[in-house]
Amino acid sequence: MRGTVLYGPRDVRFEERPEPEIIEPTDAIIRTAATCVCGSDLWPYRGDDPVTEPRPMGHEYCGVVEEVGGAVRNIKPGQFVVGSFFSSDNTCPICQAGYQSRCVRGELAAPTGAQAPFIRVTLADGTLVATPDLPEDDLVPSLLAASDVLGTGWFAADAADVKPGSTAAIVGDGAVGLCAVIAARQMGAERIIMMSRHEARATLAREFGATDIVGERGDEGVARVKELTGGLGAHSVVEAVGTQESMMQAIRSTRPGGHVGFVGVTHGVEIPGQELFFSEVHLLGGPAPVRRFLPELIDLIWNRKIDPGKVFDLRLPLEQVAEGYKAMDERRAIKALLMP
Amino acid sequence: MRGTVLYGPRDVRFEERPEPEIIEPTDAIIRTAATCVCGSDLWPYRGDDPVTEPRPMGHEYCGVVEEVGGAVRNIKPGQFVVGSFFSSDNTCPICQAGYQSRCVRGELAAPTGAQAPFIRVTLADGTLVATPDLPEDDLVPSLLAASDVLGTGWFAADAADVKPGSTAAIVGDGAVGLCAVIAARQMGAERIIMMSRHEARATLAREFGATDIVGERGDEGVARVKELTGGLGAHSVVEAVGTQESMMQAIRSTRPGGHVGFVGVTHGVEIPGQELFFSEVHLLGGPAPVRRFLPELIDLIWNRKIDPGKVFDLRLPLEQVAEGYKAMDERRAIKALLMP
Repeated sequence: MRGTVLYGPRDVRFEERPEPEIIEPTDAIIRTAATCVCGSDLWPYRGDDPVTEPRPMGHEYCGVVEEVGGAVRNIKPGQFVVGSFFSSDNTCPICQAGYQSRCVRGELAAPTGAQAPFIRVTLADGTLVATPDLPEDDLVPSLLAASDVLGTGWFAADAADVKPGSTAAIVGDGAVGLCAVIAARQMGAERIIMMSRHEARATLAREFGATDIVGERGDEGVARVKELTGGLGAHSVVEAVGTQESMMQAIRSTRPGGHVGFVGVTHGVEIPGQELFFSEVHLLGGPAPVRRFLPELIDLIWNRKIDPGKVFDLRLPLEQVAEGYKAMDERRAIKALLMP
Repeated sequence: MRGTVLYGPRDVRFEERPEPEIIEPTDAIIRTAATCVCGSDLWPYRGDDPVTEPRPMGHEYCGVVEEVGGAVRNIKPGQFVVGSFFSSDNTCPICQAGYQSRCVRGELAAPTGAQAPFIRVTLADGTLVATPDLPEDDLVPSLLAASDVLGTGWFAADAADVKPGSTAAIVGDGAVGLCAVIAARQMGAERIIMMSRHEARATLAREFGATDIVGERGDEGVARVKELTGGLGAHSVVEAVGTQESMMQAIRSTRPGGHVGFVGVTHGVEIPGQELFFSEVHLLGGPAPVRRFLPELIDLIWNRKIDPGKVFDLRLPLEQVAEGYKAMDERRAIKALLMP
């Protein structure tokens, strides 16, 4: 088969790769229905994370189980499944507490890279969740979104403790931030403020449930959120970028006693302790424990209550994966869907 | 009257001061039953916080109401009251959410300084809580502790989400850390690990309910907590020091998905964003909203369920306040009680 490999900054190749095989008895092999490029793939693509050797790419996936290892009990060949980027046994104390992205046995879910027609998934039983049946084609992008970008936006809103009737603000208008709007809406937020100065993204945010769009950034963005919240700040703020500016904007936009959920992979961020102390906000972030939310997300998608697949505004054959990276890097696309 | 004023590093004077008077109609004047020196008073005492002009000192107090302003409705002369270091109207949205230390109308509760025989307290109705009756003398130290050190330890344990059956660890064996042990015990923690290498403090920690004493610090302390918790880390960690080392020790001692409550006033702390991201712990700290907990704390003390007054291991007449600072600075005393 051919799969995606990153050789260095802006050097993505779709090239011959060995077809993945079962290695551990807990593995499964999946025939990819759809995969995509993640905002976090752009860090190494842009050279912001070093690439020391050719790296198989992709960690978002859904598809049909081809084969399972001898120890796999719940997942069966022929099932359509969605999984997270990080595998989990779903039984250890950390998983049981809902933090499957930090499972004590966890590893990369798709070590052979998910931007490929076949994928080896580790700890299949604890990582994969099957859909009720084979999905209709138009549901596939949304199910794929559940694999990471929706699960991450959902975790961010959950970490930011969005409650019915509350005000949520979202810093970051990428696919994760947009999915956080979906989550905040589902969790009952009355007011959802999206920080965006990008027309197409703001429009999609409104479609997903945002009630206010704020174009200002940094301190001006903070001041605008305060203005919209009686001077207090939002109850819940999602940080979905990962820079110093976005983190401080998120903390400063939150009212005392409020919650920040941060899911942008932090790059060069230092949080000043004294400011955090006196801001008195709850802070929780990290790699999203997508597995915790997958059953609920699949249910909402299956019953067409949410349509996160709309974040894919570019659809390409998998072999054109390099163009997917390029379009996202140049912000021509929010998120590129890749069809094998 | 005479009151306490800090002129510069290690220069505490007990000197003639004007007797406080009602200024705002929401004020009350209290005759101090007991006051004390706070760990945070040591920051300016040691010169770690600059002292640019003579500063009236003290923010912990309990006593009998002498007089109230014309707008005070609930607090009455003759009542014995306990209040927090920061005043609150207890009605604004931030107070209603339980963050009275960030009340939109709040200010210093005792701007004239609490290490004095009479104190002016601002926003008396929202700040002060009356005891059921005049207390017996032996309850006064514990009621005074509720004013800050117990309320702060309690907030730390609450922020660290201590739950029945969980494991809590406490970084910092000062009075606040020791009171956090009382709180963790009351909240039902099964295992309470106190980080201490000071015999008298460790003994008191055990008396308050600590099940394990760990003398190691920094990375070694973290390793020891991991050893005691099946390699995972504690569910709940209280940080009650405020330095970079103690903050990182607290974060690293917490299991993924666990909670850090930090109440040491942070000095020069920078939290690395990427480590916080991958540690995936909840973080909440700040000036404790003591007012939220005061009714419960007074009730527990009144019914002799807890005895936080034991943290006072030095009792002095108020006029010897300078010796109280000195003893605490030299770690000869955990906390100095001052009797007018």
